[in-house]
Amino acid sequence: MTAGDNQYTAGGRLRHLLTTENLSRDTLTHILDTAESFIDFGQREIKKVPLLRGKTVVNLFFEDSTRTRTTFEIAAKRLSADVINLNASRLSTNKGETVLDTVRNLEAMHTDLFVVRDSQSGAAYLISQHVPEHVSIINAGDGRHAHPTQAMLDVFTIRQHRQDFHNLSVAIVGDILHSRVARSQIHALNTMGVPDIRVIAPRTLLPTEVERLGVHPYTDMHAGLEDADVVIMLRLQVERMQGSLIAGEREYFNLYGLTRDKLQRAKPGVLVMHPGPINRGLEIASDVADGDHSVILSQVTNGIAVRMSVMAILMGGRQKPDR
Amino acid sequence: MTAGDNQYTAGGRLRHLLTTENLSRDTLTHILDTAESFIDFGQREIKKVPLLRGKTVVNLFFEDSTRTRTTFEIAAKRLSADVINLNASRLSTNKGETVLDTVRNLEAMHTDLFVVRDSQSGAAYLISQHVPEHVSIINAGDGRHAHPTQAMLDVFTIRQHRQDFHNLSVAIVGDILHSRVARSQIHALNTMGVPDIRVIAPRTLLPTEVERLGVHPYTDMHAGLEDADVVIMLRLQVERMQGSLIAGEREYFNLYGLTRDKLQRAKPGVLVMHPGPINRGLEIASDVADGDHSVILSQVTNGIAVRMSVMAILMGGRQKPDR
Amino acid sequence: MTAGDNQYTAGGRLRHLLTTENLSRDTLTHILDTAESFIDFGQREIKKVPLLRGKTVVNLFFEDSTRTRTTFEIAAKRLSADVINLNASRLSTNKGETVLDTVRNLEAMHTDLFVVRDSQSGAAYLISQHVPEHVSIINAGDGRHAHPTQAMLDVFTIRQHRQDFHNLSVAIVGDILHSRVARSQIHALNTMGVPDIRVIAPRTLLPTEVERLGVHPYTDMHAGLEDADVVIMLRLQVERMQGSLIAGEREYFNLYGLTRDKLQRAKPGVLVMHPGPINRGLEIASDVADGDHSVILSQVTNGIAVRMSVMAILMGGRQKPDR
Repeated sequence: MTAGDNQYTAGGRLRHLLTTENLSRDTLTHILDTAESFIDFGQREIKKVPLLRGKTVVNLFFEDSTRTRTTFEIAAKRLSADVINLNASRLSTNKGETVLDTVRNLEAMHTDLFVVRDSQSGAAYLISQHVPEHVSIINAGDGRHAHPTQAMLDVFTIRQHRQDFHNLSVAIVGDILHSRVARSQIHALNTMGVPDIRVIAPRTLLPTEVERLGVHPYTDMHAGLEDADVVIMLRLQVERMQGSLIAGEREYFNLYGLTRDKLQRAKPGVLVMHPGPINRGLEIASDVADGDHSVILSQVTNGIAVRMSVMAILMGGRQKPDR
Repeated sequence: MTAGDNQYTAGGRLRHLLTTENLSRDTLTHILDTAESFIDFGQREIKKVPLLRGKTVVNLFFEDSTRTRTTFEIAAKRLSADVINLNASRLSTNKGETVLDTVRNLEAMHTDLFVVRDSQSGAAYLISQHVPEHVSIINAGDGRHAHPTQAMLDVFTIRQHRQDFHNLSVAIVGDILHSRVARSQIHALNTMGVPDIRVIAPRTLLPTEVERLGVHPYTDMHAGLEDADVVIMLRLQVERMQGSLIAGEREYFNLYGLTRDKLQRAKPGVLVMHPGPINRGLEIASDVADGDHSVILSQVTNGIAVRMSVMAILMGGRQKPDR
Repeated sequence: MTAGDNQYTAGGRLRHLLTTENLSRDTLTHILDTAESFIDFGQREIKKVPLLRGKTVVNLFFEDSTRTRTTFEIAAKRLSADVINLNASRLSTNKGETVLDTVRNLEAMHTDLFVVRDSQSGAAYLISQHVPEHVSIINAGDGRHAHPTQAMLDVFTIRQHRQDFHNLSVAIVGDILHSRVARSQIHALNTMGVPDIRVIAPRTLLPTEVERLGVHPYTDMHAGLEDADVVIMLRLQVERMQGSLIAGEREYFNLYGLTRDKLQRAKPGVLVMHPGPINRGLEIASDVADGDHSVILSQVTNGIAVRMSVMAILMGGRQKPDR
């Protein structure tokens, strides 16, 4: 899948956000800079701008995720959009309608922006290929493939604390194999010029030939954290613990859980990040999650700004002469 | 049931929309003309007018229908109303509250407009008899009885393509017996002066004495489509296939599915319509649904305009001197 | 639990509404007076004021209650807030996130006001202890503990009809033992100076040492209603009928159901109240619920005004110099 090819218009404007792959550093920087302008917004007395007034944003979630849906709903409402929440699995399967028929119907209602979430890879990409010119798509997570707004808020959070990407070591720890978050982070960090991206996981949770993504794999967490500037913990899907991929919760925590002890291998001012929701005591110790190095709650705050930024950029290039 | 009698105020203003039965041609035309004024609205940069600002619209759905609920929610929000979605089955049965107690409570909260959907015939009518003067009801489908906004968007769509109703042949195909959509279409088309309304179905899916509705019944689809200007396919309720009413999917499609071949019997510029969601390959072939004659997606677009129109008309007659 | 201690800021401003306990008569009167200013609001053509514009209100319901959620949603929207509805049980348990992690995430999104409902006592109090200074909490019912907005709308409704609290006899009838509503009413009525508060219930549904709450217990309803000015019926939780606490529906209605006959013991102009939804024929006869003495629907109307009042007061003390 080369979803990235589909994200720009012929004129070079960003039209969809499906993946961080193939996005230029200029585009990523534009998203980060625009998010910057929304970051003090949350502190204002009136958290509302009319940028998306009169636009209809549809949260089209084929996979349930209250948390992610809420962040997009808040972002869209602060931009003054009308928001429609659709639990689309119900919509489409109950009456045997195909996903594309669902989408065609919604776009016939003159909706402007679809935020698409699906447990299958490629859903947002598929939809983006079939919508008319005036509709934009944001991928809010598709299977193992991509979760670009999560990656962008992570990059944004790093930029808040580190002036330069060109001298950073970033370690991503956990189930790299199944993680759309890791995949999107790796593409974005590479594009931003991070020279040393490490992935740390048991061999069973590393993709084969993972080096081709431009990362350094480690199965030993102590070695992988050595002098790291940033440690990004992934959420462990607890349901995978039942399978044969992981030995057991306690053993996993011993080997790959982030503890104060292990964290001492990293640089003194290391940032600890996690996309949430965290499994305390499973992939990260509570005292580390709540500790001085943790910027986990900043990530949540930044997530609203980044989503406002992406929505504003996708919708912004389309001013028509009639208004 | 003569729900139609209840729709006008003593002063002759349209207060509820419960059924297309007994509505005057003037009223239908007023709905269509008002919808016309909203039709280019979807193309605007800012799809928002303040007509229902400060009004509270309640989507009171005793039967789940994400799709229909979404159309009313979008229409109400574009009119600047506050929208409350209630899955009312849960509300009323969980705690043993009666439907009328639920409604009395909602109206005590000074809500203005109820959009009511129920699997039982008569729900919207029952509610309309018990609400105070300042509350209006829109029937969004009740059992087998009526679905007036669907019928009005269908009439609107026909009017977009045919200047005059007085020389049209309109064929409605499918489960006429159980269809609230067909019932409402027949009343509206008759009132608009369509001289030749045909219903095409297996005998088991035709009401007895269907001619009394002012239609011509056909059991042979080829004959029924002869020189038709408009073909409206109804959605087949797949759950009825299990019963004895219909022989089987393949046989049904052979006899009553709309194919290119059968469509050649109709007029060259025939319009193909369907209330959606379509069952591809069951009541309509995919190439016909997506073909040149199909106006199925226009129906969806028009549905927003027609619902905005009905809401604006019902709410519009009530300007009070205090503002 | 002394949740009341936590409700004021150091400067004496009301910050949270967790319980009516320990609130001053000035505070209660301020809530009532502010609600008064919203009471004709529901009659206006445009039911909208910008007091909470740009604020984000989260309905954080760990216990499902469509009815209560709807009243807060309507109140918040009429104040122009953005409203996010979260069925939080799903949010928090699905992925093993703790309640406090959920709350920390939501506040990191710069939300302003949480309306919290839980089947466990103490949820709103727990959350209020962990939110930063700029976040307020309203308890929308927690276990058996408190339901302060319900109590305040009841006091408001009494004040609409009786000028003075200092000569009133108020009887509360039903499952006092398990009722958060009764508990909050008793505190509020005591603070407002009602000299004679009676609780009427079978001995199994009266707390031990109930007199210490400042009430007079009765097991005989006829005696308890004697010369009462106000009768507040509680909702009977039908699921308790299955247990051993109550003998049976018919016997309960005979002994503690409010009938015309029993009501004759009360003062001629007695007010009949009920928090809803009512169980007709179980705790109250239909003709009494719908009769001349009933102000049950006024309570619903007043509930919106009281919730607008509380939201406006909690949010109002925080004008920042930057706007």
